[in-house]
Amino acid sequence: MTTAATTTRPSSYNDLCAAMHELGTLGSISALVGWDQETYMPPKGTEARSDQSALLAKLMHERATDPKLGEMISVCESDPDLQDPTNAEFANVREMRIDYDKATKLPGDLVSALAKAQSKAQDVWKSARKNNDFKSFVPALTEVMSLTRRKGECLGIPEGGELYDALLNEYEPNATAAQIESIFTPLRGKLSAFIQEVADNGDAPDVSFVHREIPTEKQHGFGMKVIKAFGFDTDRGRLDTTTHPFCSGFAPGDTRLTTRYALTNFPDAIGSTMHECGHGLYEQGLPKETGDFGTPLTQAISLGIHESQSRMWENMVGRSRAFWSWALPIAKEMFSPTMDDVALDPMVRAMNTCTPSFIRVESDEATYNLHVMLRFELERAMISGNLDIKDLPEAWNTKFKDMLGLDVPDDARGCLQDVHWSFGLVGYFPTYTLGNLYAAQMWETINDTITDLDEQMAKGQFGELLAWTRAHIHVHGRRYSAGEIIERATGRALDPEPLMRHLESRVRPAYGL
Amino acid sequence: MTTAATTTRPSSYNDLCAAMHELGTLGSISALVGWDQETYMPPKGTEARSDQSALLAKLMHERATDPKLGEMISVCESDPDLQDPTNAEFANVREMRIDYDKATKLPGDLVSALAKAQSKAQDVWKSARKNNDFKSFVPALTEVMSLTRRKGECLGIPEGGELYDALLNEYEPNATAAQIESIFTPLRGKLSAFIQEVADNGDAPDVSFVHREIPTEKQHGFGMKVIKAFGFDTDRGRLDTTTHPFCSGFAPGDTRLTTRYALTNFPDAIGSTMHECGHGLYEQGLPKETGDFGTPLTQAISLGIHESQSRMWENMVGRSRAFWSWALPIAKEMFSPTMDDVALDPMVRAMNTCTPSFIRVESDEATYNLHVMLRFELERAMISGNLDIKDLPEAWNTKFKDMLGLDVPDDARGCLQDVHWSFGLVGYFPTYTLGNLYAAQMWETINDTITDLDEQMAKGQFGELLAWTRAHIHVHGRRYSAGEIIERATGRALDPEPLMRHLESRVRPAYGL
Repeated sequence: MTTAATTTRPSSYNDLCAAMHELGTLGSISALVGWDQETYMPPKGTEARSDQSALLAKLMHERATDPKLGEMISVCESDPDLQDPTNAEFANVREMRIDYDKATKLPGDLVSALAKAQSKAQDVWKSARKNNDFKSFVPALTEVMSLTRRKGECLGIPEGGELYDALLNEYEPNATAAQIESIFTPLRGKLSAFIQEVADNGDAPDVSFVHREIPTEKQHGFGMKVIKAFGFDTDRGRLDTTTHPFCSGFAPGDTRLTTRYALTNFPDAIGSTMHECGHGLYEQGLPKETGDFGTPLTQAISLGIHESQSRMWENMVGRSRAFWSWALPIAKEMFSPTMDDVALDPMVRAMNTCTPSFIRVESDEATYNLHVMLRFELERAMISGNLDIKDLPEAWNTKFKDMLGLDVPDDARGCLQDVHWSFGLVGYFPTYTLGNLYAAQMWETINDTITDLDEQMAKGQFGELLAWTRAHIHVHGRRYSAGEIIERATGRALDPEPLMRHLESRVRPAYGL
Repeated sequence: MTTAATTTRPSSYNDLCAAMHELGTLGSISALVGWDQETYMPPKGTEARSDQSALLAKLMHERATDPKLGEMISVCESDPDLQDPTNAEFANVREMRIDYDKATKLPGDLVSALAKAQSKAQDVWKSARKNNDFKSFVPALTEVMSLTRRKGECLGIPEGGELYDALLNEYEPNATAAQIESIFTPLRGKLSAFIQEVADNGDAPDVSFVHREIPTEKQHGFGMKVIKAFGFDTDRGRLDTTTHPFCSGFAPGDTRLTTRYALTNFPDAIGSTMHECGHGLYEQGLPKETGDFGTPLTQAISLGIHESQSRMWENMVGRSRAFWSWALPIAKEMFSPTMDDVALDPMVRAMNTCTPSFIRVESDEATYNLHVMLRFELERAMISGNLDIKDLPEAWNTKFKDMLGLDVPDDARGCLQDVHWSFGLVGYFPTYTLGNLYAAQMWETINDTITDLDEQMAKGQFGELLAWTRAHIHVHGRRYSAGEIIERATGRALDPEPLMRHLESRVRPAYGL
């Protein structure tokens, strides 16, 4: 699949890779510093830690915007040995140019104004959510949104696109709001109808047994067993505990996962562990050790593709009957006697509930996507100027009723629930559902290719599945766009049907439909 | 005790402190990266980690030797507002000048030649020790020693001193070999005679019960209880596990200890925990949070003073009858039933053994110092040219027989046992015994001042002791030399008698003498 690399690399290209290696190394240090802050740093280390992070950010910014780097990129762009668009080096230089232009397009005063406004908005958001007081959040959110709009203008509206696209492309390069809308809109209708059908006619699974108390160490042991079976290399990574789970692919040979444990909700922990493991498998599969670490070809292509990997292992694998026919006996033994009486069928049903609820991060696999679409529509309207910040609660609640059939009781459980917008993260939400869409489409191709995948999973064998993702997704880094990766891997452009089919195939049996 | 700071600080001084803050922050990042390498880094992270460490070392070196920093120091040196030698700012600038001159004195080619030779010598040393083959180590050690000698010449021989002093001053500023010799020589004679007396006439304590198996988690729990009682602030630090225990005082509010646990030797673990805790208490007591972090006044004055703090808590406190009359009941309860039958008297005796043995790091409190003196004499002779590297084993074995009365069976248990020399660490060993000497002399003053210290310790109260070390040692950072600190704190210059008295007071009762 991969075209051979140029046999002798021009020295201009080697110099550029060396500069990127230093930048990548600084990034890996910064990631370690961030990881430690969430895992082991003592509470009073906060102030010094923020000095450390700020200094590293400054050093990285200096290098990322260094005119000398720009010159090195230009030299490579005009090097006669680097003109073949099918070569890896060509793609690497192309992506470096994109990064460099982005980094240099944002004026320093905007960057610091945004940082200041975000920091303030987060504080205000916290107390606004706590006090269920949206009004107090309006000025801070307005400020962040206005600066975020300016950021989008500086980054530049892609040809034929809209301002929102400039922001979206920070997380999902080459995607457009129009294209996402064309996929989300039909999905939204079908999903809403399906959820209504389940609510009206389904026989809701019993989930009481998943709330039995299981000690954290035992849950951790089970999680470790699962991620090792998935293929996460613990010689090149580790799993720790944090309040908010994350994955950080630091550096070659060093990918760190974190998860959280609730004493009386073990599916939550194992779900979060499998999710982060999916991210970690992508990070371990990127060619950081064999390629030029720090260059784009060793990096993830987009948040959507990253999320497709986490969702695939969390949902397609982790909620499947095949997976649990292998994993349940292990869990039962490790948690004995707590789960001794649990049979496969109720376990699988309990993993595939579908019930509208107010909070995105607590929602199930199917309704989750409606939470995302709602946010996508609202943030797009806020950026285009079609929605005044002050009117956000009303717009939220109307849409929520329309999409999920529930009356939002208060803004804390409505438009104040997520931190993203106070961070200026606009264009981020849709990547969650893009991830689900990518994953579902890959999943169909994978099952067409590995025809006995269910049998393999039921034996705890995930190697062939991982190998498929390595070969079709991970190895490319940023060589191809997300859209190209999907087309190359599945033979067709992204469409909403596979996700819809996937969700129905899981939820219908769980609800006896 | 501390003279008031200048009320308005000149801007030249503020600029200098800001530059040192950045250098200190880089240092704290580097320390975190090193800590993680020993604690949580996955095995395959090594290569990327060495890139990270090398990059940070490069960035720190650039800043530490930046001519602009030199100019800033010069400006402060001639600032009329910074001329009062009793002011803290004056001392801070004085120490920055010392650091800057040292950093700029070493030519880049020497630094890299040393790094290369050290890295090679460590590999050679490992297999030489394993194979008990000193000859194979001779060329590598000769190379390191020759470069280390050149390093000493570049640093410059202090007035009236010898080449060894230049190296020693890296670890113990202002100390001289001659002065150390004048203290070590009488101590050596007395100590050898005393150890012989103990061997001839003493009744050796029973130590069998300390080798009962105690689970690691229980040992960790006991260690945590002890260091918290000592006053180690776990909101501003933590304790982890590593093969080789260490303390790293990263940054304001962040001091990390590590220890190790042997299943069947709990005094070893608690000793190492108390030792590192002593280092950690010094680090937490340095004015990093209230002062200008990164400047010399927030840093430890010398390895000897650092070691005095670790040895005081490990030995003066941790082997005392008073400490164990508080700690033993706690240990017995936490380790129950393993230690149920152990009484105070045998416990204290077992903590105060005195038996010549071959390995420094396994030796007891008293004989340890002879191991150090042996190394001091030999490394001084190697640097002065009075001892050929090839003759090291014979010189070692002769001295060892003379000082400790034992025939060294092989070089692995003789001159090949320590890694220090292959690192080019010359002048480092004596700081271990300097630490013991400083600690013993402080301990006499402390007991003269806090007359009921034993009663306090027997109740698990260590606050007054810690406060004394804070006020007389920690708070000064590098404001005064180690010698000045000792004189200010104890009213007299360093002498060998307190350590001799201390050791006798512990060992005699343990051996019924």
